[in-house]
Formats: sequence, C-alpha cells, structure tokens
Amino acid sequence: MKKPCHMQARGRIQGLRKPLIIAVLGAGNGGQAMAGWLASRGCEVRLTDLFPNYLAPLRRLKAIELSGAVQAEGRVTVCRDPAGCVRGADMIILATAAPGHKRLVARMAPGLTDGQVLLATPGYFSSLTVPVYLKALGYKPRLVCAEAESLIYTCRSAEPGKVAVYFVKKKMGIGVQPQSEARRVLEMIRPFYPQMVDEGHSFKVALDNVNYALHPAILLFNAGWVEAARGNWIFYKEGVTPSVIRAVEGLDAERLALGSAAGLRLTPVYKLLKKFYRVPGANHLLSLLQRNPAYQNIQAPPVLDYRYFTEDVCYGLVPMAALSRKLGLAAPVMDSIIRLASLLLGRDLGRAGLRLSDMGLESLGRKELIRTLTGQA
Amino acid sequence: MKKPCHMQARGRIQGLRKPLIIAVLGAGNGGQAMAGWLASRGCEVRLTDLFPNYLAPLRRLKAIELSGAVQAEGRVTVCRDPAGCVRGADMIILATAAPGHKRLVARMAPGLTDGQVLLATPGYFSSLTVPVYLKALGYKPRLVCAEAESLIYTCRSAEPGKVAVYFVKKKMGIGVQPQSEARRVLEMIRPFYPQMVDEGHSFKVALDNVNYALHPAILLFNAGWVEAARGNWIFYKEGVTPSVIRAVEGLDAERLALGSAAGLRLTPVYKLLKKFYRVPGANHLLSLLQRNPAYQNIQAPPVLDYRYFTEDVCYGLVPMAALSRKLGLAAPVMDSIIRLASLLLGRDLGRAGLRLSDMGLESLGRKELIRTLTGQA
Repeated sequence: MKKPCHMQARGRIQGLRKPLIIAVLGAGNGGQAMAGWLASRGCEVRLTDLFPNYLAPLRRLKAIELSGAVQAEGRVTVCRDPAGCVRGADMIILATAAPGHKRLVARMAPGLTDGQVLLATPGYFSSLTVPVYLKALGYKPRLVCAEAESLIYTCRSAEPGKVAVYFVKKKMGIGVQPQSEARRVLEMIRPFYPQMVDEGHSFKVALDNVNYALHPAILLFNAGWVEAARGNWIFYKEGVTPSVIRAVEGLDAERLALGSAAGLRLTPVYKLLKKFYRVPGANHLLSLLQRNPAYQNIQAPPVLDYRYFTEDVCYGLVPMAALSRKLGLAAPVMDSIIRLASLLLGRDLGRAGLRLSDMGLESLGRKELIRTLTGQA
Repeated sequence: MKKPCHMQARGRIQGLRKPLIIAVLGAGNGGQAMAGWLASRGCEVRLTDLFPNYLAPLRRLKAIELSGAVQAEGRVTVCRDPAGCVRGADMIILATAAPGHKRLVARMAPGLTDGQVLLATPGYFSSLTVPVYLKALGYKPRLVCAEAESLIYTCRSAEPGKVAVYFVKKKMGIGVQPQSEARRVLEMIRPFYPQMVDEGHSFKVALDNVNYALHPAILLFNAGWVEAARGNWIFYKEGVTPSVIRAVEGLDAERLALGSAAGLRLTPVYKLLKKFYRVPGANHLLSLLQRNPAYQNIQAPPVLDYRYFTEDVCYGLVPMAALSRKLGLAAPVMDSIIRLASLLLGRDLGRAGLRLSDMGLESLGRKELIRTLTGQA
C-alpha cells in the first residue's frame, strides 16, 4: 500500500533536500503536540515559550510523545531565547495564548527576517497585530502571516512532554496575508497537515474562530458552577444546554453580521464544528457539542480567571465588538458578555483586550477599514 | 409571663370587637403561609388565586398548617371570585407573583371600595401600578397601597395546605402610599407581624427588594447548571460564589445609584439581608448567602423559565433600567442581565416586563418623576 503524501514527506518539502526548520512558540497543549508531531515527521523543530518554567522539564526529556488519536514521538530543541528560536526558521508557529502574542513578538523580533512564514493557530487577528507590534518596536521584516481557524489538535497535556490527543480536526481553514503567498504556505504545511486548506482572507479566518463563539458564553452561564465545583465537571457535555445554545447562537448571529458588514461570508459555528469534528448523528449545535467524542474529557476550567475569558473575551469578543461599532453595527450580546465577564473577574476586560490600534485600524473610516481587512471596497 | 402584644390581639384591632377581615390573593408559598398564620391568630381570612387548580385542594382541606419556624394552623375561606374575596375586607394582601398583578387587579376591581388597604408582599411597584391598572378599567377606589420589602416568611409549600417555614424575617420595612395612612396600616398589621415597620416612601421600599438584587444574577451565572442538573442543587449555598458576589454587587451599585438619583437612600442588599436574617458570624454578602440557615433547603429552580427571571427581571430589573434611563443614568449591568436572560429564554424580557406607562410615569420629566415617586422636588 502506498503511503499517503504527508507520510512520505518526512520534513522535506518535496523536491528539496534540507529538512524544514520550524520554530514553535508556546509549549502548552497545542504547541507541544505540533512540535512533537512535526519532529516525528522529520522536521527540525525548535520549541520556546515566554515562561521558562514550561521549558525546563521539556529540556530534560528526550522527546515529546503524542498518544490517543495520534501516536508519535519527536525530538525537539528547546530554546530559551525566542529570537534565537526563530532565526533562520522556514516557518514560525505561534501556538501560545493570544495574551502572550505581543510579548512574544517583542522577544522574537531580533531573529526575524523577510519572507519567513508565521502561522498562528488559532489566529486571533495576528496577521493584523504582529506587523503593528513589530513596527512599534522598529522592526519591519516582511513576514508572511497566516492564521488558522483553530488548533489542529483537540488535546491536553497533563504532564510536560506527554500530550493526550483526543482528536485531529478533519479539515482546517488557513488565511494567508498576503494572499499571493497562500500557495507557498500551504505547500509547506500540507505535507504534515493535509487537512489545512486555503480559506481566503486572514481576517475572515480570524473571525471564524470557534473559541470566541463558544468559550465565553458557556463559561459565563456556568460561572457559579465552575467556582462551586472547581471545574470538576465536563465542559461541553454538561455545561451546554438548550438555553446556553440559544445564547451561543445569539452571539454567533452578531459575529456573522460583522462579517457581512465587512463583505465576508463567515461560517456559522455549527458548520465550523461540523467541518472539524466527526459526531455521528449530531444534526444541531447542541448535540454536536454534547456528544462530540473529542470533548468527552474536556473538563471545565478550575477557575474563572482562565483563557476562556482572558483570551477569548479580551482577544476575540472585545475586538469584534469594537469592529462592529466601527462598522455601525450594534453588538449587544458581545457587549453584555464582555461587561458581565468583567464584573465576575473584577476587572475591565474591555480595556484589557485587543484595541483597534493594536490592529492598525483605529484611524480608518468604514470603507477604508473594509478595504484594509478584506481587499474589497 | 405576660403574652406579647401580638399574641393577645387574636385578630382584633385593639379597641375593636370585630375580627379583622383579610383577603389573601395568591395561594402559593407566601400566600398560604400568611393566610394560615393570620387565621390562626383569629382573623377572618379569605384566600383566592388566579389559578383555580391551586384552590381546589385547599377547599377540601380544613385548615392551612405551618410547620418549622412557626407552628400554627388556621382555617381559611377559599374563594373562587377575587372580587367577592376582597369585598368588605379590611386588608387585601397581594401575595401572588408580580406577573399576575394586572390580571388579579382586573378580577378583584369590582369588589374594591375606598379606604381598603392593599399590602403587596413584596411590593414590585404595586403602589404605582395598581391605581394605573384600576383607572384603565374605569375603577377609581381610593386604596391605601402598601408595599413590603419582602415576604415575611422564607418558606416553601410542597403540598397544598402545608407550608414549611424556614424562617420568619426579623424585621421588614413597609412603605405606605399615601404616607399619612402609614400609622393606620401598621396598627392594623403589627398585632400579627410586629416585625413590620414604617420605611417611608413606598417607592423606596419597592426598590429595596432583595429578589431583584439576587435572583436574576445568581440564576444567570448558573443557567447551564440549572438545566444540566434540573435544579438539583442548593441555590444560595452552592450557586453563590465570590465571582457571582462581585456581579451581584455591581448590579446593586446600579440600584443604589438609581435611588440616589431619585433622592432616596436605598439599603444595600447586604444590609437588607442582615436585617431580615440571623446568620451568626456572617460579615459579608457571600457568607450571609451561603450560610443563612433559612436558605439551606432552597433548591435551585428546575428550569430557567422561572419567576427568578420572569418576575424579577421583568418586574424588577426592567422597570429599574427604564427608570435609570429616565433619570439619565447608565445601567449597563441591568441591561446586560436583561439582554442575556432574554437570550436564554428565547424571548424579549424587556418587552414582556413592566413599562413606565404601567406605573403612570411615561410622560413625566425628570423633576416631575422624582416628585411623583418620592414627594421631593
């Protein structure tokens, strides 16, 4: 039997001899999983993180091991210095939570060079923010910025170097900026992740993020339960109910309206999940979430001060609400969730979140904004 | 040992011979408890309800029995017709949920006469709404409208005619409109409820309602849990957590600001609860709610479509948000809770709720509004 294409590749772009050099930024669940897999396929993988205490135990290990839906083991080079980590890399994978993007960009900036590919997974508007962050620091490398709709793996790492992979998403959209580079990026990554496909505008892909669409609302409507039981229950299976679904759909309608106002046809959260997962017999959002086999081990967070709020409200709902306002749309559900999540945490997540100026969009008018985001007028 | 004053009274206003005739409207937890107690103290008690199926089993019983914090048994007359029920009554106690007020007023209107006392417990702005409802139907009896801060009992009736009383509130404010009648109302009710004291403006008392201050927020932040477990957990003990308290306090700040804007010094929810309950060692809102012995058996509602939303959002937060707007105040927490609770239930609770026109306030300017509500300029 012939091996599938990505099994043959083993880290070499077809036609090239040299293994691909990949810098993975972020040694959490997703970063470890991607680093381990890419290394197992023959890439030269370097791994770094903003937090040295994530790196120390990995440095002592020989390899990162994936188990569950993927069985693989790959040896990675652990780097303390993000600039050194990215220097000379063909591709930089940003797999850290969005609140760390700005600091990580500052740390890696000295190592960047023109033409390097930065793939953020998921994107969190990084194709807009990273160039702004770099420019503010006086760096102007011409990066190719790609955003993925989500993380390719649904996984959790309970101990350093070991990742339990519950599922590998079936299909995953990528948006590349500039779009003329999309083919090159896809050719580079598809040998290892043939599920990744060109989804067009990076801004569309940034908006088609199921994390913002799901995490904040589900957490908000179960906030008491999270604290009362310290998250000792199954997040999607138990925390998602018919009423919570109505709220999720109300929120999703505002996201889709924002896309429409910008001339983009976004994908409803139901369809994104259908694309990612395999849930036999699930024909609506509720059953898709409750019965997704990949979600059966995902516990609720142990506390509310967790990335479902600090990342997905601050770097998802906050910029979406600001963009909605800029495009003349009311977004009362987004506003309400931001407001109440802020109240729960005792700090203003609106102010802590991504600003239009972080995306270089603060001074644009409506038409200019749309053109900048989507290339349309 | 001399009996306390209210034990001597046995249904007679001191100096009068005739027992007090009391019509209790609402045969739920609170209505049954008050009817049973007042009858046990010698009042002539009539009981009615909008829903005949609440009345049928009571009609077959000889008496209503209170157990727990109060041991009493009283025989009441069950009436099908609210107009007949209130005819000739010295005092009418409105103990039905606020969404039933308008229909109940329409049903009792033909039986009302000048000078009758209507005590709503809790008030839900009834001293404003009842005259408006009556006038719209062509009735103009000069009622004395009194509002209580809360229900005197913390109780639940699991079967008709039997009420488990967890606690009798230690002290309870009453607001009477017109205020010149406050003394007469208190003299009438204090023989049976010496805890009731004159709190001044009925509008102040309507705003000092712990139900709005607690129920909607606690339910909202535990909505998923309510549906997932069908309410099979203890509402205040488990559903109230440090973060939920922050949200409750954020909401309460808006309520207090509304009071201030109207020239009223409202009571913070913490102080209201301190006044009502006895919770040894509880010195902040969280412990007061979690450890209140009276709350240890109060389960979460089995569904979200429950009076904690349908009464306390619609007849509490909705009019408070409208009044805030009218007085030039932003009330983003109220607005957010109304919005998200509506989304959860799949219908607009803002539109279903009490309007300024229901309170006769829609056409007033700011100063006129304040004067109408509080007698101040």
